[in-house]
Amino acid sequence: MKFSSKLVENAVNEVSKLPGIGKRSALRTVLYLLKQSPSRTEQLSSALTKLRNQVNYCSVCKNISDQDICEICSNPKRDPSLVCVVENIEDVMAIENTAQFNGLYHVLGGVIAPMQGIVMDDLEIDSLLNRLKTGYVEEVVFALSSTVEADTTSFYIYKKINNNGIKVSTIARGIPVGNDLEYTDELTLGRSILARIPFEHSFNPS
Amino acid sequence: MKFSSKLVENAVNEVSKLPGIGKRSALRTVLYLLKQSPSRTEQLSSALTKLRNQVNYCSVCKNISDQDICEICSNPKRDPSLVCVVENIEDVMAIENTAQFNGLYHVLGGVIAPMQGIVMDDLEIDSLLNRLKTGYVEEVVFALSSTVEADTTSFYIYKKINNNGIKVSTIARGIPVGNDLEYTDELTLGRSILARIPFEHSFNPS
Repeated sequence: MKFSSKLVENAVNEVSKLPGIGKRSALRTVLYLLKQSPSRTEQLSSALTKLRNQVNYCSVCKNISDQDICEICSNPKRDPSLVCVVENIEDVMAIENTAQFNGLYHVLGGVIAPMQGIVMDDLEIDSLLNRLKTGYVEEVVFALSSTVEADTTSFYIYKKINNNGIKVSTIARGIPVGNDLEYTDELTLGRSILARIPFEHSFNPS
Repeated sequence: MKFSSKLVENAVNEVSKLPGIGKRSALRTVLYLLKQSPSRTEQLSSALTKLRNQVNYCSVCKNISDQDICEICSNPKRDPSLVCVVENIEDVMAIENTAQFNGLYHVLGGVIAPMQGIVMDDLEIDSLLNRLKTGYVEEVVFALSSTVEADTTSFYIYKKINNNGIKVSTIARGIPVGNDLEYTDELTLGRSILARIPFEHSFNPS
Protein backbone atom coordinates (compact mmCIF):
# COMPACT_ATOMS: atom_id res chain seq x y z
CA MET A 1 0.00 0.00 0.00
CA LYS A 2 1.30 3.45 -0.95
CA PHE A 3 0.62 6.46 1.27
CA SER A 4 1.00 10.06 0.29
CA SER A 5 1.46 11.02 3.94
CA LYS A 6 3.94 9.71 6.52
CA LEU A 7 1.48 10.58 9.30
CA VAL A 8 -1.20 8.39 7.73
CA GLU A 9 1.29 5.59 7.12
CA ASN A 10 2.47 5.71 10.72
CA ALA A 11 -1.07 5.73 12.12
CA VAL A 12 -2.11 2.83 9.87
CA ASN A 13 0.93 0.82 10.98
CA GLU A 14 0.15 1.40 14.65
CA VAL A 15 -3.55 0.55 14.31
CA SER A 16 -2.86 -2.58 12.25
CA LYS A 17 -0.75 -3.98 15.12
CA LEU A 18 -3.97 -4.45 17.11
CA PRO A 19 -5.43 -7.97 17.13
CA GLY A 20 -7.85 -8.80 14.31
CA ILE A 21 -7.14 -5.58 12.41
CA GLY A 22 -5.37 -5.80 9.06
CA LYS A 23 -3.88 -3.03 6.95
CA ARG A 24 -7.15 -2.40 5.15
CA SER A 25 -9.33 -2.01 8.21
CA ALA A 26 -6.57 0.06 9.82
CA LEU A 27 -6.69 2.42 6.84
CA ARG A 28 -10.48 2.56 7.08
CA THR A 29 -10.22 3.43 10.79
CA VAL A 30 -7.63 6.14 10.14
CA LEU A 31 -9.62 7.74 7.29
CA TYR A 32 -12.75 7.55 9.46
CA LEU A 33 -10.97 9.47 12.24
CA LEU A 34 -9.82 12.08 9.71
CA LYS A 35 -13.43 12.68 8.70
CA GLN A 36 -14.55 13.14 12.32
CA SER A 37 -13.83 16.16 14.49
CA PRO A 38 -10.36 16.27 16.12
CA SER A 39 -11.97 15.91 19.57
CA ARG A 40 -13.09 12.38 18.64
CA THR A 41 -9.46 11.29 18.16
CA GLU A 42 -8.49 13.21 21.28
CA GLN A 43 -11.04 11.32 23.36
CA LEU A 44 -9.96 7.97 21.95
CA SER A 45 -6.26 8.44 22.59
CA SER A 46 -6.75 9.96 26.02
CA ALA A 47 -9.02 7.05 27.03
CA LEU A 48 -6.36 4.57 25.92
CA THR A 49 -3.46 6.42 27.54
CA LYS A 50 -5.35 6.89 30.81
CA LEU A 51 -6.32 3.24 30.83
CA ARG A 52 -2.77 2.05 30.31
CA ASN A 53 -1.15 4.40 32.81
CA GLN A 54 -3.71 4.36 35.60
CA VAL A 55 -5.07 0.82 35.48
CA ASN A 56 -4.84 -1.17 38.68
CA TYR A 57 -5.33 -4.76 39.72
CA CYS A 58 -7.31 -5.73 42.81
CA SER A 59 -4.85 -6.78 45.53
CA VAL A 60 -7.19 -9.57 46.64
CA CYS A 61 -8.54 -11.22 43.49
CA LYS A 62 -6.17 -9.77 40.80
CA ASN A 63 -9.14 -8.62 38.74
CA ILE A 64 -8.82 -5.30 36.96
CA SER A 65 -9.93 -2.43 39.18
CA ASP A 66 -9.70 1.32 39.62
CA GLN A 67 -9.20 1.00 43.38
CA ASP A 68 -6.80 -1.12 45.41
CA ILE A 69 -9.63 -3.54 46.19
CA CYS A 70 -12.16 -4.13 43.41
CA GLU A 71 -15.91 -3.53 43.52
CA ILE A 72 -16.64 -7.25 43.79
CA CYS A 73 -14.24 -7.96 46.67
CA SER A 74 -15.37 -4.88 48.58
CA ASN A 75 -19.09 -5.58 48.11
CA PRO A 76 -20.52 -6.64 51.53
CA LYS A 77 -23.45 -8.40 49.83
CA ARG A 78 -21.19 -11.00 48.24
CA ASP A 79 -20.25 -14.27 49.88
CA PRO A 80 -16.54 -14.26 50.84
CA SER A 81 -16.60 -17.98 51.70
CA LEU A 82 -16.99 -18.90 48.01
CA VAL A 83 -14.10 -18.25 45.60
CA CYS A 84 -14.32 -18.90 41.87
CA VAL A 85 -10.93 -19.49 40.20
CA VAL A 86 -10.79 -18.23 36.60
CA GLU A 87 -8.09 -17.80 33.95
CA ASN A 88 -8.54 -14.15 33.09
CA ILE A 89 -10.55 -10.95 33.37
CA GLU A 90 -12.81 -11.86 30.44
CA ASP A 91 -14.00 -14.91 32.40
CA VAL A 92 -14.94 -12.73 35.39
CA MET A 93 -17.01 -10.54 33.05
CA ALA A 94 -18.66 -13.59 31.44
CA ILE A 95 -19.68 -15.06 34.83
CA GLU A 96 -20.79 -11.66 36.14
CA ASN A 97 -23.03 -11.29 33.10
CA THR A 98 -24.89 -14.47 34.05
CA ALA A 99 -25.84 -12.90 37.44
CA GLN A 100 -25.81 -16.47 38.88
CA PHE A 101 -22.71 -16.24 41.08
CA ASN A 102 -22.61 -14.40 44.37
CA GLY A 103 -19.12 -15.27 45.61
CA LEU A 104 -15.70 -13.70 44.95
CA TYR A 105 -13.16 -14.43 42.23
CA HIS A 106 -9.49 -15.23 41.86
CA VAL A 107 -7.90 -14.44 38.51
CA LEU A 108 -4.95 -16.76 37.79
CA GLY A 109 -3.77 -14.83 34.72
CA GLY A 110 -3.59 -17.97 32.58
CA VAL A 111 -3.00 -21.70 33.00
CA ILE A 112 0.14 -23.79 33.38
CA ALA A 113 1.46 -24.31 29.85
CA PRO A 114 5.16 -25.30 29.85
CA MET A 115 5.17 -25.46 26.03
CA GLN A 116 4.43 -21.72 25.99
CA GLY A 117 6.79 -21.07 28.88
CA ILE A 118 4.04 -20.44 31.45
CA VAL A 119 4.92 -22.10 34.77
CA MET A 120 3.35 -21.99 38.25
CA ASP A 121 5.28 -18.90 39.31
CA ASP A 122 3.86 -16.88 36.40
CA LEU A 123 0.35 -17.42 37.71
CA GLU A 124 -1.45 -16.11 40.80
CA ILE A 125 -1.41 -19.51 42.50
CA ASP A 126 0.59 -18.52 45.59
CA SER A 127 -1.70 -15.57 46.23
CA LEU A 128 -4.69 -17.94 45.99
CA LEU A 129 -3.14 -20.36 48.50
CA ASN A 130 -2.33 -17.48 50.87
CA ARG A 131 -5.90 -16.29 50.54
CA LEU A 132 -7.20 -19.73 51.49
CA LYS A 133 -4.96 -19.79 54.59
CA THR A 134 -6.94 -16.92 56.14
CA GLY A 135 -9.71 -19.41 56.88
CA TYR A 136 -12.59 -17.37 55.46
CA VAL A 137 -12.92 -19.47 52.30
CA GLU A 138 -15.09 -22.60 52.52
CA GLU A 139 -15.40 -23.54 48.86
CA VAL A 140 -13.22 -23.09 45.76
CA VAL A 141 -14.96 -23.42 42.36
CA PHE A 142 -12.78 -23.99 39.30
CA ALA A 143 -14.20 -22.26 36.22
CA LEU A 144 -11.38 -22.97 33.78
CA SER A 145 -11.46 -23.92 30.10
CA SER A 146 -11.82 -27.54 29.09
CA THR A 147 -8.21 -28.06 27.95
CA VAL A 148 -5.38 -30.32 29.06
CA GLU A 149 -3.46 -27.31 30.39
CA ALA A 150 -6.44 -26.06 32.39
CA ASP A 151 -7.08 -29.56 33.78
CA THR A 152 -3.41 -29.78 34.82
CA THR A 153 -3.64 -26.39 36.51
CA SER A 154 -6.82 -27.20 38.43
CA PHE A 155 -5.41 -30.58 39.49
CA TYR A 156 -2.16 -28.94 40.70
CA ILE A 157 -4.09 -26.40 42.78
CA TYR A 158 -6.46 -29.11 44.01
CA LYS A 159 -3.51 -31.16 45.31
CA LYS A 160 -2.13 -28.07 47.10
CA ILE A 161 -5.37 -27.20 48.92
CA ASN A 162 -6.80 -30.69 49.38
CA ASN A 163 -5.72 -31.09 53.03
CA ASN A 164 -7.09 -27.73 54.17
CA GLY A 165 -10.68 -28.91 54.75
CA ILE A 166 -11.85 -26.63 51.92
CA LYS A 167 -14.51 -27.94 49.55
CA VAL A 168 -13.27 -27.94 45.95
CA SER A 169 -15.72 -28.05 43.03
CA THR A 170 -15.69 -27.40 39.30
CA ILE A 171 -18.32 -25.98 36.96
CA ALA A 172 -20.60 -28.53 35.26
CA ARG A 173 -19.66 -29.85 31.82
CA GLY A 174 -22.42 -31.11 29.57
CA ILE A 175 -24.68 -30.40 26.65
CA PRO A 176 -25.15 -26.61 26.26
CA VAL A 177 -28.69 -25.37 26.79
CA GLY A 178 -30.57 -25.31 23.46
CA ASN A 179 -28.15 -27.65 21.64
CA ASP A 180 -29.32 -30.64 19.63
CA LEU A 181 -28.17 -33.95 21.07
CA GLU A 182 -27.28 -35.41 17.67
CA TYR A 183 -24.84 -32.59 16.84
CA THR A 184 -22.98 -32.72 20.15
CA ASP A 185 -19.49 -34.24 20.07
CA GLU A 186 -19.14 -37.75 21.55
CA LEU A 187 -16.81 -36.69 24.36
CA THR A 188 -19.24 -34.12 25.77
CA LEU A 189 -22.24 -36.41 25.30
CA GLY A 190 -20.42 -39.37 26.89
CA ARG A 191 -19.31 -37.28 29.86
CA SER A 192 -22.78 -35.83 30.31
CA ILE A 193 -24.20 -39.36 30.64
CA LEU A 194 -21.54 -40.43 33.13
CA ALA A 195 -22.04 -37.22 35.13
CA ARG A 196 -25.85 -37.45 35.14
CA ILE A 197 -27.65 -35.66 37.98
CA PRO A 198 -30.89 -36.42 39.85
CA PHE A 199 -33.82 -35.14 37.76
CA GLU A 200 -35.14 -32.85 40.48
CA HIS A 201 -31.76 -31.02 40.51
CA SER A 202 -32.22 -30.04 36.87
CA PHE A 203 -35.04 -27.59 37.63
CA ASN A 204 -33.74 -26.61 41.08
CA PRO A 205 -29.93 -26.64 40.89
CA SER A 206 -29.19 -25.01 44.24
CA MET B 1 -21.45 -5.96 29.59
CA LYS B 2 -20.33 -5.27 33.15
CA PHE B 3 -16.92 -3.73 33.81
CA SER B 4 -15.11 -3.69 37.12
CA SER B 5 -13.15 -0.60 36.01
CA LYS B 6 -14.42 2.76 34.73
CA LEU B 7 -11.16 3.20 32.80
CA VAL B 8 -11.73 -0.04 30.92
CA GLU B 9 -15.37 0.81 30.29
CA ASN B 10 -14.45 4.23 28.93
CA ALA B 11 -11.72 2.83 26.67
CA VAL B 12 -14.03 0.09 25.36
CA ASN B 13 -16.73 2.68 24.61
CA GLU B 14 -14.29 4.89 22.70
CA VAL B 15 -12.80 2.01 20.68
CA SER B 16 -16.23 0.56 19.84
CA LYS B 17 -17.20 3.86 18.18
CA LEU B 18 -14.73 3.06 15.38
CA PRO B 19 -16.23 1.60 12.18
CA GLY B 20 -16.56 -2.19 12.09
CA ILE B 21 -15.62 -2.63 15.76
CA GLY B 22 -18.28 -3.87 18.16
CA LYS B 23 -18.21 -4.01 21.95
CA ARG B 24 -16.60 -7.45 21.97
CA SER B 25 -13.70 -6.65 19.65
CA ALA B 26 -13.26 -3.34 21.47
CA LEU B 27 -12.88 -5.25 24.73
CA ARG B 28 -10.41 -7.62 23.07
CA THR B 29 -8.38 -4.64 21.80
CA VAL B 30 -8.38 -2.98 25.22
CA LEU B 31 -7.34 -6.17 27.06
CA TYR B 32 -4.65 -6.74 24.42
CA LEU B 33 -3.21 -3.26 25.06
CA LEU B 34 -3.23 -3.95 28.81
CA LYS B 35 -1.10 -7.04 28.25
CA GLN B 36 1.43 -5.11 26.13
CA SER B 37 3.99 -2.64 27.45
CA PRO B 38 2.69 0.89 28.14
CA SER B 39 4.90 2.25 25.30
CA ARG B 40 2.75 0.33 22.78
CA THR B 41 -0.35 2.29 23.82
CA GLU B 42 1.70 5.48 23.94
CA GLN B 43 2.84 4.97 20.33
CA LEU B 44 -0.68 4.22 19.16
CA SER B 45 -2.29 7.25 20.74
CA SER B 46 0.51 9.62 19.77
CA ALA B 47 0.33 8.40 16.14
CA LEU B 48 -3.43 9.05 16.09
CA THR B 49 -3.21 12.44 17.80
CA LYS B 50 -0.36 13.58 15.54
CA LEU B 51 -2.25 12.43 12.48
CA ARG B 52 -5.40 14.29 13.43
CA ASN B 53 -3.70 17.52 14.47
CA GLN B 54 -0.99 17.80 11.83
CA VAL B 55 -2.64 16.32 8.77
CA ASN B 56 -2.73 18.51 5.68
CA TYR B 57 -4.43 18.45 2.31
CA CYS B 58 -2.59 19.21 -0.92
CA SER B 59 -3.59 22.70 -2.07
CA VAL B 60 -3.62 21.53 -5.71
CA CYS B 61 -5.32 18.13 -5.77
CA LYS B 62 -6.88 18.00 -2.24
CA ASN B 63 -5.22 14.66 -1.59
CA ILE B 64 -3.91 14.03 1.92
CA SER B 65 -0.33 15.26 2.29
CA ASP B 66 2.28 16.23 4.86
CA GLN B 67 3.39 19.25 2.80
CA ASP B 68 1.38 22.04 1.22
CA ILE B 69 1.74 20.36 -2.19
CA CYS B 70 1.63 16.56 -2.19
CA GLU B 71 4.31 14.18 -3.45
CA ILE B 72 2.32 13.36 -6.58
CA CYS B 73 1.66 16.98 -7.62
CA SER B 74 5.26 18.02 -6.93
CA ASN B 75 6.78 15.05 -8.80
CA PRO B 76 8.38 16.42 -12.04
CA LYS B 77 8.18 12.97 -13.67
CA ARG B 78 4.38 12.99 -13.67
CA ASP B 79 2.31 14.36 -16.52
CA PRO B 80 0.52 17.58 -15.43
CA SER B 81 -1.59 17.65 -18.60
CA LEU B 82 -3.59 14.60 -17.42
CA VAL B 83 -5.89 14.92 -14.38
CA CYS B 84 -7.81 11.99 -12.92
CA VAL B 85 -10.94 13.02 -10.98
CA VAL B 86 -11.72 10.68 -8.06
CA GLU B 87 -14.15 10.67 -5.13
CA ASN B 88 -11.77 10.24 -2.22
CA ILE B 89 -8.27 9.50 -0.95
CA GLU B 90 -8.84 5.72 -0.99
CA ASP B 91 -9.37 5.92 -4.77
CA VAL B 92 -6.02 7.73 -5.23
CA MET B 93 -4.32 4.92 -3.30
CA ALA B 94 -6.12 2.24 -5.33
CA ILE B 95 -5.07 3.79 -8.65
CA GLU B 96 -1.52 4.44 -7.42
CA ASN B 97 -1.24 0.76 -6.47
CA THR B 98 -1.90 -0.24 -10.08
CA ALA B 99 1.19 1.77 -11.21
CA GLN B 100 -0.64 2.37 -14.53
CA PHE B 101 -1.36 6.07 -14.21
CA ASN B 102 1.25 8.78 -14.63
CA GLY B 103 -0.88 11.93 -14.42
CA LEU B 104 -2.13 13.96 -11.47
CA TYR B 105 -5.30 13.64 -9.42
CA HIS B 106 -8.16 15.76 -8.20
CA VAL B 107 -10.01 14.54 -5.12
CA LEU B 108 -13.65 15.70 -5.10
CA GLY B 109 -14.34 14.57 -1.55
CA GLY B 110 -17.53 12.73 -2.56
CA VAL B 111 -20.24 12.93 -5.20
CA ILE B 112 -23.36 15.07 -5.56
CA ALA B 113 -26.03 13.35 -3.43
CA PRO B 114 -28.88 15.73 -2.54
CA MET B 115 -30.64 12.99 -0.56
CA GLN B 116 -27.66 12.95 1.81
CA GLY B 117 -27.37 16.73 1.75
CA ILE B 118 -24.22 16.78 -0.40
CA VAL B 119 -24.44 19.54 -3.02
CA MET B 120 -21.94 21.01 -5.52
CA ASP B 121 -20.50 23.48 -3.02
CA ASP B 122 -19.55 20.68 -0.61
CA LEU B 123 -17.25 19.17 -3.22
CA GLU B 124 -13.97 20.34 -4.73
CA ILE B 125 -15.61 21.14 -8.09
CA ASP B 126 -14.79 24.85 -8.19
CA SER B 127 -11.13 24.17 -7.42
CA LEU B 128 -11.08 21.64 -10.28
CA LEU B 129 -12.58 24.18 -12.71
CA ASN B 130 -10.08 26.83 -11.58
CA ARG B 131 -7.28 24.32 -12.08
CA LEU B 132 -8.46 23.66 -15.64
CA LYS B 133 -8.48 27.43 -16.39
CA THR B 134 -4.69 27.57 -16.04
CA GLY B 135 -4.44 25.90 -19.44
CA TYR B 136 -1.95 23.17 -18.46
CA VAL B 137 -4.55 20.39 -18.40
CA GLU B 138 -5.31 18.66 -21.69
CA GLU B 139 -7.34 15.68 -20.52
CA VAL B 140 -9.65 14.98 -17.57
CA VAL B 141 -10.32 11.31 -16.73
CA PHE B 142 -13.30 10.51 -14.51
CA ALA B 143 -12.62 7.56 -12.23
CA LEU B 144 -15.82 7.62 -10.17
CA SER B 145 -17.99 4.78 -8.89
CA SER B 146 -20.69 3.31 -11.08
CA THR B 147 -23.66 4.87 -9.27
CA VAL B 148 -26.41 7.30 -10.27
CA GLU B 149 -24.92 9.97 -7.99
CA ALA B 150 -21.45 9.56 -9.50
CA ASP B 151 -22.85 9.65 -13.03
CA THR B 152 -24.73 12.86 -12.16
CA THR B 153 -21.55 14.37 -10.75
CA SER B 154 -19.40 13.52 -13.74
CA PHE B 155 -22.10 14.77 -16.12
CA TYR B 156 -22.36 18.06 -14.20
CA ILE B 157 -18.60 18.60 -14.34
CA TYR B 158 -18.52 17.50 -18.00
CA LYS B 159 -21.09 20.18 -18.86
CA LYS B 160 -19.03 22.80 -17.04
CA ILE B 161 -15.74 22.04 -18.80
CA ASN B 162 -17.09 20.93 -22.17
CA ASN B 163 -16.45 24.24 -23.95
CA ASN B 164 -12.84 24.59 -22.75
CA GLY B 165 -11.28 22.43 -25.49
CA ILE B 166 -10.24 19.90 -22.86
CA LYS B 167 -10.58 16.19 -23.65
CA VAL B 168 -12.88 14.43 -21.17
CA SER B 169 -12.76 10.66 -20.73
CA THR B 170 -13.91 8.06 -18.22
CA ILE B 171 -12.41 4.77 -17.06
CA ALA B 172 -13.53 1.66 -18.95
CA ARG B 173 -16.46 -0.37 -17.60
CA GLY B 174 -16.64 -4.04 -18.48
CA ILE B 175 -16.05 -7.59 -17.35
CA PRO B 176 -13.35 -7.69 -14.63
CA VAL B 177 -10.16 -9.53 -15.59
CA GLY B 178 -10.45 -13.18 -14.56
CA ASN B 179 -14.24 -13.19 -14.17
CA ASP B 180 -16.48 -15.83 -15.70
CA LEU B 181 -18.83 -14.48 -18.34
CA GLU B 182 -21.79 -16.52 -17.14
CA TYR B 183 -21.63 -15.08 -13.61
CA THR B 184 -21.39 -11.44 -14.68
CA ASP B 185 -24.55 -9.33 -14.17
CA GLU B 186 -26.56 -8.51 -17.32
CA LEU B 187 -25.99 -4.75 -17.08
CA THR B 188 -22.20 -5.03 -17.10
CA LEU B 189 -22.21 -7.71 -19.79
CA GLY B 190 -24.64 -5.73 -21.97
CA ARG B 191 -22.59 -2.56 -21.62
CA SER B 192 -19.36 -4.40 -22.36
CA ILE B 193 -20.82 -5.61 -25.68
CA LEU B 194 -22.06 -2.14 -26.62
CA ALA B 195 -18.71 -0.61 -25.64
CA ARG B 196 -16.61 -3.23 -27.47
CA ILE B 197 -13.11 -2.15 -28.54
CA PRO B 198 -10.93 -3.10 -31.55
CA PHE B 199 -9.22 -6.41 -30.77
CA GLU B 200 -5.70 -5.04 -31.20
CA HIS B 201 -6.41 -2.48 -28.42
CA SER B 202 -7.02 -5.29 -25.94
CA PHE B 203 -3.37 -6.33 -25.84
CA ASN B 204 -1.93 -2.85 -26.44
CA PRO B 205 -4.27 -0.40 -24.70
CA SER B 206 -2.13 2.75 -25.03
